[in-house]
Amino acid sequence: MDYRRTHCCGELRKSHVEEVVTLSGWVHRRRDHGGLIFIDLRDRFGLTQLIFDPEISKEALDLASKLRSEWVITARGRVRHRGPQLINPKLATGEIEIEVQEFEVLSKAKTPPFSICDDATETHEDTRLKYRYLDLRRGPILEKLEMRHKAMVATRQFFDSQGFLEITTPILARSTPEGARDYLVPSRIYPGNFYALPQSPQLFKQLLMVGGIDRYFQIAPCFRDEDLRSDRQPEFTQIDVEMSFGYPEDIQKLTGDFLKILFKSCLDYEIEGEIPSMSYHDCLEHYGTDRPDLRFALPLVRIDAIAERSEFSVFKDQLERGGCVKALCVKGGADTSRKGIDRYTEFVGKFGLRGLGWMKRQDEGLTSSIVKFFSPQLQEELIEAVDAEVGDLILFAAEGEAVVNQALDHLRRLIARDRKLIDPDLFKFLWVTDFPLFEWESDQGRPQSLHHPFTMPHPADIPLLKSDPLKVRSHAYDIIINGSEIGGGSQRIHDIEIQKMVFEALKLDPEEVKTKFGFFTEALQYGPPPHLGIALGFDRLIMILTKTENIRDVIAFPKTQKASDLMMQCPSSVSPQQLDELEIQAEPKEITWI
Amino acid sequence: MDYRRTHCCGELRKSHVEEVVTLSGWVHRRRDHGGLIFIDLRDRFGLTQLIFDPEISKEALDLASKLRSEWVITARGRVRHRGPQLINPKLATGEIEIEVQEFEVLSKAKTPPFSICDDATETHEDTRLKYRYLDLRRGPILEKLEMRHKAMVATRQFFDSQGFLEITTPILARSTPEGARDYLVPSRIYPGNFYALPQSPQLFKQLLMVGGIDRYFQIAPCFRDEDLRSDRQPEFTQIDVEMSFGYPEDIQKLTGDFLKILFKSCLDYEIEGEIPSMSYHDCLEHYGTDRPDLRFALPLVRIDAIAERSEFSVFKDQLERGGCVKALCVKGGADTSRKGIDRYTEFVGKFGLRGLGWMKRQDEGLTSSIVKFFSPQLQEELIEAVDAEVGDLILFAAEGEAVVNQALDHLRRLIARDRKLIDPDLFKFLWVTDFPLFEWESDQGRPQSLHHPFTMPHPADIPLLKSDPLKVRSHAYDIIINGSEIGGGSQRIHDIEIQKMVFEALKLDPEEVKTKFGFFTEALQYGPPPHLGIALGFDRLIMILTKTENIRDVIAFPKTQKASDLMMQCPSSVSPQQLDELEIQAEPKEITWI
Repeated sequence: MDYRRTHCCGELRKSHVEEVVTLSGWVHRRRDHGGLIFIDLRDRFGLTQLIFDPEISKEALDLASKLRSEWVITARGRVRHRGPQLINPKLATGEIEIEVQEFEVLSKAKTPPFSICDDATETHEDTRLKYRYLDLRRGPILEKLEMRHKAMVATRQFFDSQGFLEITTPILARSTPEGARDYLVPSRIYPGNFYALPQSPQLFKQLLMVGGIDRYFQIAPCFRDEDLRSDRQPEFTQIDVEMSFGYPEDIQKLTGDFLKILFKSCLDYEIEGEIPSMSYHDCLEHYGTDRPDLRFALPLVRIDAIAERSEFSVFKDQLERGGCVKALCVKGGADTSRKGIDRYTEFVGKFGLRGLGWMKRQDEGLTSSIVKFFSPQLQEELIEAVDAEVGDLILFAAEGEAVVNQALDHLRRLIARDRKLIDPDLFKFLWVTDFPLFEWESDQGRPQSLHHPFTMPHPADIPLLKSDPLKVRSHAYDIIINGSEIGGGSQRIHDIEIQKMVFEALKLDPEEVKTKFGFFTEALQYGPPPHLGIALGFDRLIMILTKTENIRDVIAFPKTQKASDLMMQCPSSVSPQQLDELEIQAEPKEITWI
Repeated sequence: MDYRRTHCCGELRKSHVEEVVTLSGWVHRRRDHGGLIFIDLRDRFGLTQLIFDPEISKEALDLASKLRSEWVITARGRVRHRGPQLINPKLATGEIEIEVQEFEVLSKAKTPPFSICDDATETHEDTRLKYRYLDLRRGPILEKLEMRHKAMVATRQFFDSQGFLEITTPILARSTPEGARDYLVPSRIYPGNFYALPQSPQLFKQLLMVGGIDRYFQIAPCFRDEDLRSDRQPEFTQIDVEMSFGYPEDIQKLTGDFLKILFKSCLDYEIEGEIPSMSYHDCLEHYGTDRPDLRFALPLVRIDAIAERSEFSVFKDQLERGGCVKALCVKGGADTSRKGIDRYTEFVGKFGLRGLGWMKRQDEGLTSSIVKFFSPQLQEELIEAVDAEVGDLILFAAEGEAVVNQALDHLRRLIARDRKLIDPDLFKFLWVTDFPLFEWESDQGRPQSLHHPFTMPHPADIPLLKSDPLKVRSHAYDIIINGSEIGGGSQRIHDIEIQKMVFEALKLDPEEVKTKFGFFTEALQYGPPPHLGIALGFDRLIMILTKTENIRDVIAFPKTQKASDLMMQCPSSVSPQQLDELEIQAEPKEITWI
């Protein structure tokens, strides 16, 4: 039989009744029913019911009785109406079925290690990864890959329409180990020398700007040999963008326009208005983190000025030591039990916060064991500061600023989950700006770039580069969606003198700079335009669009947290001849595969 | 000054006269002219003439006298008409110029090592590669990257419109060294084990079909650690396509439709009708190669039957030894001098052909020293066989078939160039089909796959897999454009039993198969659909679209033939700490860079 389809398995409708069609696909389910056999035939596009009826073809019926799950068949037959009482409204093709006249088995299948039909399979993820080609047949993974495709189409259409050229940059690049660990690739022609897989196309895209390309983008593969958190992969994808002759507000506008089109075309979701901005300082102040989830309020409120006038020594001691006191007002939280508060106290302990003060606003006023340390006047001020209404719970943290912020950020999110404050269909976008240029790297006893060493300092702060580098703000910006950092970028340095000052502030000696970045600082001497860019985590965007927290769900062939591919069984040992050709020595440790 | 542009440098026309505009870009040329200064300002989009006039701004004029080539400036001024006698018709903006009111230097430039203005620079390519960011500013490279972008857009639009999902496959993959040499990546988590960069996504795309993805494509990075010919790069790009439930004619139709759209949208070139097909056997017979250039005729004509009845022992001896005699009729070639024929004879000698017979058809009949060995009857037959007219030259080669084919293929192409038979604006497409499944690998004393071991044998030839494997034809197909192999593909084996027979014919022992391809043969047991695909060399397509023979011209940051990046100076040595973490030992050889 010619196995080419006239239709796919998601296509046939009432209007096709009486047509003779050919379908090919997988046996999804088989049901034997009073001398008839029903098969749900599946392909990427849907399910169609086949019926094998002895009055149509005895031969086909006999053969159909041998069919098993996941066999591949091609079948020809007449489309017929199911009859009103047999319609399956859950199925796009639920009004029709195919009376099979003839069919052929194209390939057989062993019994799969897990069910393809069952959406909420309880199978261990490792088994699903080992048999990824079977997992792909299941709807949940397929849907996410379809979304990924759709998002790629929308991304490319958008940037193309804005005059950006998609340019592929090298994957065999140079090791520049500032930042994460590189994956290395031994060179055969120059033994003992190595390429590195790029952690991002950062330098390439800046060089493209030096080269006058003006507007570049790429959906770029990137690599980091890090110990993996659950939302990381050793190879990941970013939407990489760079443009010349613009200011941060221009790329923020562009990115906002892009996100509007992306969410519209992928989810039919409207992002209203401009994406708001908040400075790094204000984010930490009000949310304790530089990536606040704005789907719910629950702001952190600094009450230093109130606390220092109270009699509560716990707060006052912290203030004296240079710490701070912040409060969180949980709307309607006065129903929280003692046990509930204990749970929160234990939770913040994990972040180094040694206690959690609390008050409830009841009809009679504020209650709790610490209220007595606050004069009525201060209680009034407190209620006003945190905007507490009757029925609210106020939680207090007093410690060093970093600890308070981290603990309350986590607590804020825990409470939001507990109290179901998050609308799962809402997306909240935020630009975070005015980051510090450097952070202190205590291991190495020197400042380190918060983003990367090519980030432009805030022009007003350039004099501080020498005198007080940790005070220098940068022209960097991050885009946050629902509390996840989805991307970031910056204005780049296009002035070689400023670049040198930054390298000095980083305490990189000139010889080291020359070895690592010599080709790049040389390029900066040949007329670089002002330029800036952004990189958006493509996998993370797809996770948000498909509402999954598992990055492996949005990648066709993902790696485990130990960076292995369970399906291919890789990494693997290689032949001694391969190593000889590269002139490297290595002792292969055996790997046990599931 | 705000350096954001109101227009780009290729945009302004007569209709903009009197507008006040801001342009930013590079100083392309400066001319001082009787108290005025003219600057051609350049960006990716074109050139615009700026005029600095003391009557507009003395200050701007003074500053402009300091400008040098490739400095970056932003300038504000009024658009004015050039006046009829000063119009530059070669320039899109040639009717206007900008009277500069104010401007600012955004960055300075050292004198570039080669001229950016001069299109036909004589600079050594190594220098251009070292300063690639400067070379990118030159038109010829930029145009090719723009074409590459355009071709990517057209490719993706086409495959998306046909229901293909673009799916990214891993770059950290498993080493399966059948074919070219892999680039290896040491694993840190599993020391002594390696990933390999994929030579193509072949196994992944087949697994996607097993996974029911149905229609997949990707513009995929691929890697081969081979000694490079001038048209190869260690990392290259292919348009990778796979589909289920089709036959070779379906993917050929699809590819033909794609090429039509590609050539139409990139070059406004119409590919008329269907792309013709020719079997591998017929290609060799008529053109001596499996990738004939059909922009010109000059077919090879086998004249064994005539030669064996002649008295010419040179021909007859070859036939007796199992060789063949083929002729090439060069239209109008009777004007070729003795010296010209000697040159051809010397040329074919490089391919092992020890002599070249020739005859000319003159008014008086065939002439040459060997005509006498052919009876008048045979001369008539010869004239008819090669379709020789008065004024034509007939060349003869007699040797073993492989030598004759290779020599005449090269000779045919040389003559076409000599006689300018090739229309440079013509594109000729050809499908080559019915390849042998295997070729004999004399080094290893076993058959080797001509394409790869997953290629479906011709169903009629399956019985020959055991008895006479070299006679088995495959369901493979190559697409040839103007004599270059641009891509190829095949129907894949979806029957595990046939796959086993092919592995046996390749003399791979089952243990080896299990180690290398175990995960894949296991997948074939879970209901693979019939599937097939193609891969098109994307870089080569762009070379054809941009009419260059240098693959480095179509890649933003290419590598040299020694696989090095002269700009980044990579590969490079890495720190001992990096090697320690990977538990590998290697002795870095020093590299000397230009």
